[in-house]
Amino acid sequence: MDIGIIGLGKMGGNMAERLRRAGHTVVGFDRSPDSARDVDSLEALVERLPAPRLVWVMVPAGGPTQETVKQLGGLLSEGDVVIDGGNSRYTDDLVHSEMLAPKGIGYLDAGVSGGVWGLQNGYALMVGGSAEDVAKAQPIFDALKPEGDSGFVHAGPVGAGHFAKMVHNGIEYGMMQAYAEGYELLSASPVVEDVPGVIKSWTQGTVIRSWLLDLLVLALEQDPELADITGYVDDSGEGRWTVEEAINHRVPAPVISAALFARFVSRQEDSPAMKAVAALRNQFGGHAVHAVAKGEAEAPA
Amino acid sequence: MDIGIIGLGKMGGNMAERLRRAGHTVVGFDRSPDSARDVDSLEALVERLPAPRLVWVMVPAGGPTQETVKQLGGLLSEGDVVIDGGNSRYTDDLVHSEMLAPKGIGYLDAGVSGGVWGLQNGYALMVGGSAEDVAKAQPIFDALKPEGDSGFVHAGPVGAGHFAKMVHNGIEYGMMQAYAEGYELLSASPVVEDVPGVIKSWTQGTVIRSWLLDLLVLALEQDPELADITGYVDDSGEGRWTVEEAINHRVPAPVISAALFARFVSRQEDSPAMKAVAALRNQFGGHAVHAVAKGEAEAPA
Amino acid sequence: MDIGIIGLGKMGGNMAERLRRAGHTVVGFDRSPDSARDVDSLEALVERLPAPRLVWVMVPAGGPTQETVKQLGGLLSEGDVVIDGGNSRYTDDLVHSEMLAPKGIGYLDAGVSGGVWGLQNGYALMVGGSAEDVAKAQPIFDALKPEGDSGFVHAGPVGAGHFAKMVHNGIEYGMMQAYAEGYELLSASPVVEDVPGVIKSWTQGTVIRSWLLDLLVLALEQDPELADITGYVDDSGEGRWTVEEAINHRVPAPVISAALFARFVSRQEDSPAMKAVAALRNQFGGHAVHAVAKGEAEAPA
Amino acid sequence: MDIGIIGLGKMGGNMAERLRRAGHTVVGFDRSPDSARDVDSLEALVERLPAPRLVWVMVPAGGPTQETVKQLGGLLSEGDVVIDGGNSRYTDDLVHSEMLAPKGIGYLDAGVSGGVWGLQNGYALMVGGSAEDVAKAQPIFDALKPEGDSGFVHAGPVGAGHFAKMVHNGIEYGMMQAYAEGYELLSASPVVEDVPGVIKSWTQGTVIRSWLLDLLVLALEQDPELADITGYVDDSGEGRWTVEEAINHRVPAPVISAALFARFVSRQEDSPAMKAVAALRNQFGGHAVHAVAKGEAEAPA
Repeated sequence: MDIGIIGLGKMGGNMAERLRRAGHTVVGFDRSPDSARDVDSLEALVERLPAPRLVWVMVPAGGPTQETVKQLGGLLSEGDVVIDGGNSRYTDDLVHSEMLAPKGIGYLDAGVSGGVWGLQNGYALMVGGSAEDVAKAQPIFDALKPEGDSGFVHAGPVGAGHFAKMVHNGIEYGMMQAYAEGYELLSASPVVEDVPGVIKSWTQGTVIRSWLLDLLVLALEQDPELADITGYVDDSGEGRWTVEEAINHRVPAPVISAALFARFVSRQEDSPAMKAVAALRNQFGGHAVHAVAKGEAEAPA
Repeated sequence: MDIGIIGLGKMGGNMAERLRRAGHTVVGFDRSPDSARDVDSLEALVERLPAPRLVWVMVPAGGPTQETVKQLGGLLSEGDVVIDGGNSRYTDDLVHSEMLAPKGIGYLDAGVSGGVWGLQNGYALMVGGSAEDVAKAQPIFDALKPEGDSGFVHAGPVGAGHFAKMVHNGIEYGMMQAYAEGYELLSASPVVEDVPGVIKSWTQGTVIRSWLLDLLVLALEQDPELADITGYVDDSGEGRWTVEEAINHRVPAPVISAALFARFVSRQEDSPAMKAVAALRNQFGGHAVHAVAKGEAEAPA
Repeated sequence: MDIGIIGLGKMGGNMAERLRRAGHTVVGFDRSPDSARDVDSLEALVERLPAPRLVWVMVPAGGPTQETVKQLGGLLSEGDVVIDGGNSRYTDDLVHSEMLAPKGIGYLDAGVSGGVWGLQNGYALMVGGSAEDVAKAQPIFDALKPEGDSGFVHAGPVGAGHFAKMVHNGIEYGMMQAYAEGYELLSASPVVEDVPGVIKSWTQGTVIRSWLLDLLVLALEQDPELADITGYVDDSGEGRWTVEEAINHRVPAPVISAALFARFVSRQEDSPAMKAVAALRNQFGGHAVHAVAKGEAEAPA
Repeated sequence: MDIGIIGLGKMGGNMAERLRRAGHTVVGFDRSPDSARDVDSLEALVERLPAPRLVWVMVPAGGPTQETVKQLGGLLSEGDVVIDGGNSRYTDDLVHSEMLAPKGIGYLDAGVSGGVWGLQNGYALMVGGSAEDVAKAQPIFDALKPEGDSGFVHAGPVGAGHFAKMVHNGIEYGMMQAYAEGYELLSASPVVEDVPGVIKSWTQGTVIRSWLLDLLVLALEQDPELADITGYVDDSGEGRWTVEEAINHRVPAPVISAALFARFVSRQEDSPAMKAVAALRNQFGGHAVHAVAKGEAEAPA
């Protein structure tokens, strides 16, 4: 079937390719003239698609997605369906859906997992929206998802797909941090001599085997002591939203929040909080503080 | 080759069976007469094994393992090797090794992962000890481990195997808690209507796919709302040791410790700490406390 | 000077009393006819005040405060000032301030601390707004605050007062939990025989002496083992907002969030997350789970 | 009365001074010839004291204290009492007590709080040991403790004093971190313009007023943005022991452990754990990593 894809970056470009390999006709648009776009405007994209149209939005969450959906609302017609496959917050979906509904334009939110490996392995899809709209896009979902009986779920009404993806990412934060703490402890212990070997040994037969663990093995094969990179870790928004939603629903989330905070710390040059602790210890105990200028301990005044 | 196995419980019994299927000759001993033991004493076990002997100890960590190793020290001879495959703390290994060394008896510590699925899939093995002793037991390790090029590592000298297994279990705590927090958040949100479906969808193509996730899918197929079990979770010791070793080595372990503490909380009828917080709020704000007798909020005196 | 107070509950009523003792003329309104109100409507309250009027809103945060401020916007005149002394989120203040500004009505947000002890000791006040509006209300602030040179701050523009109060409460969560964890550990150790005595000893000369500690001593004098209350702890919103603002500003907040999550846990009958962990352990290890019906461990099927 | 004090550093020297001001006769020894010592050996110290002797040990915990107590065991006589006022782990006390008991030498462990302010304000004392031994030293305790009816407790048998002091310090870690997180959040928010002013305002009338808060005010008066110190924070052992004892007693300690881990992080040049997380994100998502050499983001290979 025909589908328009807006946004041909790392994710959108690969998804277009996977859909074409499956026999679908993709009309791609990207605002960059240097992209492999098929048309040079949203208007042209809409014109190239037969009605009822299916348009997959794959641009950065927040402003760019909101603006794109708004523009599509002015271009599409009754019976068309917009799919937001980006990492939008699920609350945006409710806004988008209500914006399009009066014109009879359907809306689906699709959480997508798979990263750079998705082209080859398929993308896991968590979808929110009406059964009717999901049915219209099902051939597309079938082509994008991995083979087998998993990798796709119609999670609930509009918003459910991005909510599920958000939780997926929150879990991802926690799992990565768990592996990372274990890695650091192995590295810190003098008794373990072959840290990459231990981690590789875990990839078969253990309780903690996983795809992430396989990737850690790959990373350690390339750089056994991770000597070439720094411990600076960005966060994309979904970890933050997961903790916020946990708070909204009164769900304790000590592990996911610890993983999130570890990323915040990783990006600080120095910690204002720990300056305050150092200052307090100096005040009550005369404990030496590390002066900024010298970078070394000195006796308090 | 020939091997003695001491302890024929859930783990030891299955390991004996896997070794026999691989063509090895196993002499099994268990202190219980109701077990499938081949001999009724340690002495008999030692007599039945040709020298140099290989004896695998698979009894509870702590006292039982310590006592068994001590007794073996009196029965075995130069060139024999004792393997502790239980969940001993790695510091015990150093004691055991030094106890046996004067008699020329070798010692290996083997961290074993795989649970009840190990008979079929193989057991991941993390081994500590000398290269010479490891070589003597290699055919046994090869039979126990899963197929493929992973699932076994000679991690370092005595203690390294159990240290690696301890870290493995610490990671396991963190991963399980990450999934659990995600599960609770999905369940708490009204927008996600098919929680088991979402979790099953994650098993292919996602960043968080893993064997533990597969098991969560199985558990939810049997009991979609986990209505038949309570949230009471034991801990086996290795999670505690992981946090203690993290402290020893000044390694931050917020995720693993949060997972450990969540288990402590899960086993409390009521929390003394939260009683103290409730008492404080009552003192400064006149906030209602929940009286024990009535179990409901009442105005403070 | 004259001031109107809306809301004569535990806080508002005591504040009115403290202001009267200081010689100010208070016109009190509460929607409850059973309160000690001076007038029976907002309209009457506004009429009784000489211009320029000062009106202190002390009703529950959220809807009630928003509605009250909106109504006041329709009743007050240029040069009057509204003070929100409740526990509003600071983002509400920006809305309120913009709503009143076109009519020339000033707006101040005042974070208030002190609880039931404020009548006697004074209330700490953190105020946000313009210097001009603060000056108008200064005599009121001076009467409410404790004696001495602290207890009042003009923290910044509109919103700064409630932001500061929110952070104050977040710190309060962390401090209470720190004491509570210490209390539980003392209680758990067999070596410490006089737990209330230890805690009382800390109230002089130690690094951790504080008013909260004094209150814990009082609570333990009334109930040395906290036997009469349960560990069920509400949270008022400001702890949640503190963590959310920490996330907004990328500030690591492991201690405050841990304290918040402990409260969530304290209110759960059972933990869905820990059910999931128990289910996982049962799946991979055959570990016994606690069945709901029996409340005791049983072997897995 | 007469007392010997071993160790005349920051703490021991001030305590000797406070005792002398109270009319007691102090014989001080320190291994450093540059100290204000009265005698130049332990033997001389013992000789100068009338029997039954009271000797206060105030040297670093661990090896130095253990060695000193051992030597005293060889020099003292039946009826004498040794008091360990250092920051020893309570498990050391049990060893020391058993070492001295056969000779009839009493033993007390005294947890001491007060820091550099103790000379002036008095030292809070938490004491473990027999009632008989406590009675012998009571005049000394009375002189050291602050005025008033608090500041001293006989917490239980040998070990109880140091256990109580350990918990005190654990609470201290949690409280400082709570203030520190609040300080960082205030500093991060653009709406609060007077951070030191807000914190000073909290010192009267609020729920979170405390001596530590007073010290934070002092620190901010000296350096309003804490610009002159770095966020590098040592830990003295008692925070580590608190978490370990919490684990021993299955007491959840999320706040105290978070505060401890924050100190570990504060001392790391780079975090091996966060390197691992960065490496994982690069593997699955092609997220840029920060190369060590350049210190800036670069596209993955």
